[in-house]
Amino acid sequence: MVVSELAEAGERRIEWAARSMPVLQAIAARFGQDRPLDGLRIAASLHVTAETAVLMGALRAGGAEIALAASNPLSTQDDVAAALGGYGIAVHARAGVDRATYYRHIHEALDISPNIVLDDGCDLVNILHTERLELLEGVAGGCEETTTGIIRLRQMAAEGALRFPVVAVNDTRTKRMFDNRYGTGQSTLDGIMRATNILLAGRTVVVAGFGYCGRGVAERARGLGARVIVTEIDPVKALDASLQGYDVRPMELAALAGDVFVTVTGNRDVIRGEHLAVMKDGAILANAGHFDVEIDVRALEEMARDVRFGIRPNTDEYVLADGRRLLLLAEGRLVNLTAAEGHPAAVMDMSFSAQALAVARLAAEAARLSPGVYDVPADIDVEVARLKLAAAGIAIDSLTDEQEDYLHSWRLGS
Amino acid sequence: MVVSELAEAGERRIEWAARSMPVLQAIAARFGQDRPLDGLRIAASLHVTAETAVLMGALRAGGAEIALAASNPLSTQDDVAAALGGYGIAVHARAGVDRATYYRHIHEALDISPNIVLDDGCDLVNILHTERLELLEGVAGGCEETTTGIIRLRQMAAEGALRFPVVAVNDTRTKRMFDNRYGTGQSTLDGIMRATNILLAGRTVVVAGFGYCGRGVAERARGLGARVIVTEIDPVKALDASLQGYDVRPMELAALAGDVFVTVTGNRDVIRGEHLAVMKDGAILANAGHFDVEIDVRALEEMARDVRFGIRPNTDEYVLADGRRLLLLAEGRLVNLTAAEGHPAAVMDMSFSAQALAVARLAAEAARLSPGVYDVPADIDVEVARLKLAAAGIAIDSLTDEQEDYLHSWRLGS
Amino acid sequence: MVVSELAEAGERRIEWAARSMPVLQAIAARFGQDRPLDGLRIAASLHVTAETAVLMGALRAGGAEIALAASNPLSTQDDVAAALGGYGIAVHARAGVDRATYYRHIHEALDISPNIVLDDGCDLVNILHTERLELLEGVAGGCEETTTGIIRLRQMAAEGALRFPVVAVNDTRTKRMFDNRYGTGQSTLDGIMRATNILLAGRTVVVAGFGYCGRGVAERARGLGARVIVTEIDPVKALDASLQGYDVRPMELAALAGDVFVTVTGNRDVIRGEHLAVMKDGAILANAGHFDVEIDVRALEEMARDVRFGIRPNTDEYVLADGRRLLLLAEGRLVNLTAAEGHPAAVMDMSFSAQALAVARLAAEAARLSPGVYDVPADIDVEVARLKLAAAGIAIDSLTDEQEDYLHSWRLGS
Amino acid sequence: MVVSELAEAGERRIEWAARSMPVLQAIAARFGQDRPLDGLRIAASLHVTAETAVLMGALRAGGAEIALAASNPLSTQDDVAAALGGYGIAVHARAGVDRATYYRHIHEALDISPNIVLDDGCDLVNILHTERLELLEGVAGGCEETTTGIIRLRQMAAEGALRFPVVAVNDTRTKRMFDNRYGTGQSTLDGIMRATNILLAGRTVVVAGFGYCGRGVAERARGLGARVIVTEIDPVKALDASLQGYDVRPMELAALAGDVFVTVTGNRDVIRGEHLAVMKDGAILANAGHFDVEIDVRALEEMARDVRFGIRPNTDEYVLADGRRLLLLAEGRLVNLTAAEGHPAAVMDMSFSAQALAVARLAAEAARLSPGVYDVPADIDVEVARLKLAAAGIAIDSLTDEQEDYLHSWRLGS
Repeated sequence: MVVSELAEAGERRIEWAARSMPVLQAIAARFGQDRPLDGLRIAASLHVTAETAVLMGALRAGGAEIALAASNPLSTQDDVAAALGGYGIAVHARAGVDRATYYRHIHEALDISPNIVLDDGCDLVNILHTERLELLEGVAGGCEETTTGIIRLRQMAAEGALRFPVVAVNDTRTKRMFDNRYGTGQSTLDGIMRATNILLAGRTVVVAGFGYCGRGVAERARGLGARVIVTEIDPVKALDASLQGYDVRPMELAALAGDVFVTVTGNRDVIRGEHLAVMKDGAILANAGHFDVEIDVRALEEMARDVRFGIRPNTDEYVLADGRRLLLLAEGRLVNLTAAEGHPAAVMDMSFSAQALAVARLAAEAARLSPGVYDVPADIDVEVARLKLAAAGIAIDSLTDEQEDYLHSWRLGS
Repeated sequence: MVVSELAEAGERRIEWAARSMPVLQAIAARFGQDRPLDGLRIAASLHVTAETAVLMGALRAGGAEIALAASNPLSTQDDVAAALGGYGIAVHARAGVDRATYYRHIHEALDISPNIVLDDGCDLVNILHTERLELLEGVAGGCEETTTGIIRLRQMAAEGALRFPVVAVNDTRTKRMFDNRYGTGQSTLDGIMRATNILLAGRTVVVAGFGYCGRGVAERARGLGARVIVTEIDPVKALDASLQGYDVRPMELAALAGDVFVTVTGNRDVIRGEHLAVMKDGAILANAGHFDVEIDVRALEEMARDVRFGIRPNTDEYVLADGRRLLLLAEGRLVNLTAAEGHPAAVMDMSFSAQALAVARLAAEAARLSPGVYDVPADIDVEVARLKLAAAGIAIDSLTDEQEDYLHSWRLGS
Repeated sequence: MVVSELAEAGERRIEWAARSMPVLQAIAARFGQDRPLDGLRIAASLHVTAETAVLMGALRAGGAEIALAASNPLSTQDDVAAALGGYGIAVHARAGVDRATYYRHIHEALDISPNIVLDDGCDLVNILHTERLELLEGVAGGCEETTTGIIRLRQMAAEGALRFPVVAVNDTRTKRMFDNRYGTGQSTLDGIMRATNILLAGRTVVVAGFGYCGRGVAERARGLGARVIVTEIDPVKALDASLQGYDVRPMELAALAGDVFVTVTGNRDVIRGEHLAVMKDGAILANAGHFDVEIDVRALEEMARDVRFGIRPNTDEYVLADGRRLLLLAEGRLVNLTAAEGHPAAVMDMSFSAQALAVARLAAEAARLSPGVYDVPADIDVEVARLKLAAAGIAIDSLTDEQEDYLHSWRLGS
Repeated sequence: MVVSELAEAGERRIEWAARSMPVLQAIAARFGQDRPLDGLRIAASLHVTAETAVLMGALRAGGAEIALAASNPLSTQDDVAAALGGYGIAVHARAGVDRATYYRHIHEALDISPNIVLDDGCDLVNILHTERLELLEGVAGGCEETTTGIIRLRQMAAEGALRFPVVAVNDTRTKRMFDNRYGTGQSTLDGIMRATNILLAGRTVVVAGFGYCGRGVAERARGLGARVIVTEIDPVKALDASLQGYDVRPMELAALAGDVFVTVTGNRDVIRGEHLAVMKDGAILANAGHFDVEIDVRALEEMARDVRFGIRPNTDEYVLADGRRLLLLAEGRLVNLTAAEGHPAAVMDMSFSAQALAVARLAAEAARLSPGVYDVPADIDVEVARLKLAAAGIAIDSLTDEQEDYLHSWRLGS
């Protein structure tokens, strides 16, 4: 495809995404009038997708100059990247690049000397603090999109290593709800269906991790007719899973029963050699956690006497010594992003809207904030939900004066 | 792709399907020994897919000579067609052919002078009875796969037009369960997600028709977080939908509320101009019924001032005079087959296994049957379920002698 | 309570039930005008409850003379029985009578020399055919309410023993749906909650039998947060349960895992000594099948070293030799009728409406019918559903002329 | 019943509850050895139920002297109160007392001059701060059980009025999960079924409030086959309800559609005259919020031309001027406690275990805490969940050393 065709395809894709992002579009319109980001430079490391393009458009409308790199070597949509050039946004990303190029792209984005950074997984912030220290001075603040990134940032903050305030966009109620639970839930199952086309009804799906993402995956798997086993390390989450009717077991027992395994813990080696050793012939392995460390792919490779790559799209078959065949989806990378199309735009509308509003807030107030990880201000979260309900045509109640009084008075008795 | 590459791709696809079809493979092995179809000629009009190929393999193993045409111009997998040639099966099908070629292909399949016919939608049987009457003499019997086909056959039988016995493979309990309910349910939603990538959580999905297929679609839509409205014409089915917690309304009211519409009634013009006229901007229209008559596409075309084809894969946008945009998936044809991959192989394992056993039964007993529509013998259905449970490693109870006695004795009181 | 107070309490109860029975009330009004039962004598053996009273009222309004006995020694509501006297209906029933009195009551009801009989479990019909043969001459036909009764009747018919036509009210689509599935489903769980007040979320409930009733119980148990294990003897039903995401196992394995067991099979000794021997301490045993034979209570008694009756309402504790305690609800009789209030009136509205219409049809047409078991005519079923939807304010679609034509024409192709 | 019989009945009830409270029993055993409460006096205002009795037993085992009053005039189980006397606990509570006596009972409990107070709704703490100021000096700290109480306490703290530290037992993850969500969910529907015996399948249930309790009620209503409408004032919660597939509307529209209404907001006048004015004939009104202020019963009384009390147990019928009949359950008080038996013991096991451990913690550390509302320490919450899983025989995973390291290292990249 020649470049202009590629860009056109990207534009169509962005237009499609924008339709499902009414909240972000409303914010973009407001930014276009108020120009809250005039004169600011933003370096971003995000999945280069159509939805991200809509966010970039909103920030651009607000007056920012932007350089964008990928946050994952596999998620870049080249047509979107091509289209973004036409929007006046510098893109440093290409699908399928190797690790060195991936990091080089982040460096190139940082060359803009950012005032604000947007990150998704903490790679860009990490590089800033370890290899591009000279730029730290100019950075007023940042946003981080994922749970995994937040864990790393909190650790940095605890060690005193973090040098500017970061808003944990991941941690808003609307983000967790929309993105982690409903977005990851649907798109993970979507990815598994596209990769394998198996019937889920009657299958046993093992979900490792019962955080917001894991809950979403478990709900959707159940909603498609599967029996669901949950594994956890946190007693409270394990108990919650059990009370929701899920079968809770340790992985060593779940490994014996599962037809499909989905890891979504934020941790490494959740499925290890000892588990692979006892799985059923034909078991399917998928990861929906941010990094490709949750399934021990190296152990799988070592145990396999033969590998048939691409037996289905995004499906590789590992034949073990005893003849059992295990199917690894998307090489153990994010199955929802690789085998499906990632979060639907409607999902990203929520977290990216919060992100856009958080950037504007940072622009106004970062000077007053000390380094550390900050929650998204609650009013931003409520505002996003309010706009989303309005876009869906859903009206809700408001408090009467008497009710307001009641909530604020502790003197009323039983 | 050169032919041999195409055939190789088809073989991979068939091998993949075969893995999820343990019942049919067990039957194929048995057929290979018993050769119950030795000397028979079979003409089939079926979706030319990998799963059908596994069925063809089983019948071939049983000794039959086979000619295969498509049952729908859109569903043919060309790689599978290419691979089937290597199995000694004559294939008359190609993806995307026009209507004339489609019918010519059926004629070519009939040229084999069949003893047994396999049909999916009743086109082949219809042509036999209207244009190829000379072949009727040689036909001992047939099988029909779909509800739609059965309706046509029963009408033919009622009018005395049907000339040989046909087994309604559609009507087994396992077929309705697996294929109509779980298969159509999952694959329809899968098709909608692949075509649009929308988030289903929180959307209103209108399901027209609450037969087995409609029930499956409604369950899966709900399982993905949608609110579901059901429309029906049968009071008993409508009541059942209501008792399952669905919102039951006539289409004229449902049309106002829906974000996504799925027709699955077996009837025509379920969504008409009067409904299109009041839908929301951005409403999505999909059909999961056998024929492309359920959505009145002609009315949609007449109402549109502009059409943007292929705005997403399998998605066309109709812009109405008042600016509202309606999205038609898969041109109103079977969305699960066109936008996704049709029923998962595990589903087809059930109905194709019943079909294979029914063909063997017809081969043995058709001479004793008068023309008419026959149910699949109950023992075949139970046998298929028994084999499927065994393949899934699920054991069940059996009656004790005392329990057998109890069930057969009416003299025991309260 | 003096008799008049009792009757008053019964009237209140009947009035309450009547509110949830709009269909039967509409039929009663119609009967009051048309008098389709003028001059007929009806003997009925039914659960003597408020809902039955509303049915009796409708039949009385239609002109019938009625004698009513109980169909189960435990289900009689004495206040309702008292109130029915005031309606001019002869009642032969009292709560808690012994077996001899129970059968004597049925004989007394038969003394009316019935033209029509209504049965629920086939005891009355059985006595007619074995002990009251002199009355058979006068009986034009009957209705039977339960699956258990139908099994006995079909056996009688197969042996040539049945002497008049019986309408299997049990087997309408609306009855199975409302009564067996939703009615038994809810009321069984209701009974378990009232008897034990346990939290169901997170518990493992074993449902023995996956017919309509078992399906209802399984759905409601799952809906209350339980994990559900299904046991079955029919491969097709077992497979369906598995595809709906239930864990399917033989009872010997389910016995190890269950916290609560519900039998609903229509067969005897579904839970036997071998199962009791391996259950967990504190396991709860309940029966929702018609007769109290599904749990082998005798085996339980023999295994127990101690019994504490009434540890909770309708809950007896059996302490086994090894110290494990098993809790038997309602003495193994119908838990929904004994520990809760049986089917909600809204449920009985459906089956009793079908029954009322079936009695009128029998009155008009029994002379033309030979002995045997008959389905409820489909039009009665549809009429009941239609009236029920109307009462709930639910409108549905009707076919256009083009759609009618389409359904009746097999010449239209793809 | 004479007193000793009453006490015996109470003991049976307490024994039954204790079976479902393995965590609290394990803690009681530990307390019996460690005696962490030796020499302390506790005044408690709690629902006087069997489960509370088990808590009292654990605190008593720990060495405390206890005076117990009711926290609601309607929830006292007199047999339990009688039995508690035998355990050496002073009980000031009786079922059905008037408001004056209720408050007098709290005063009597306070006469013990408590060091620790346990409250459920903040009435006791309120009286302490307004009428029994002389006792404040001796109070080291307290626990509060409900959301409603916490709202009042936070307001007191904000105004500087709160004089000692209070642990918000309500706010642990396990409490919200078990108690608010699963406990209130099940017991509210249980109460509605016991009071009305209506079939929930196919009914429209309106749930006002989508906090943890509301979510539980909505889930259980849906699980019983109802269509659920949610009303909310918080955009984020409203959005979440919508994404879970609930129909979200303002109450003025929900009022038109509902068959059953459940308020569970913690606020007053959620259902007002303007809503009552448009409800359907036969609509059922129930409250599951702490106080009886959520339904405006006064408005209902004023609109009624007639009231029939006790038409069913805990069900009063209000006949409006236009003939419509509205059914108020439990006089607008907690329907789960009044019409059913409140939370199952398994639920209370969690919150009361947290409460017992929090009391021990307060005994050890209150001196170091300034006045204010405190969360339950996270380790207590995890400990309770851990014990509960162990009691249910559920094993879970634990982190490997490599996983611990991974979670604590931010330097690992993508």
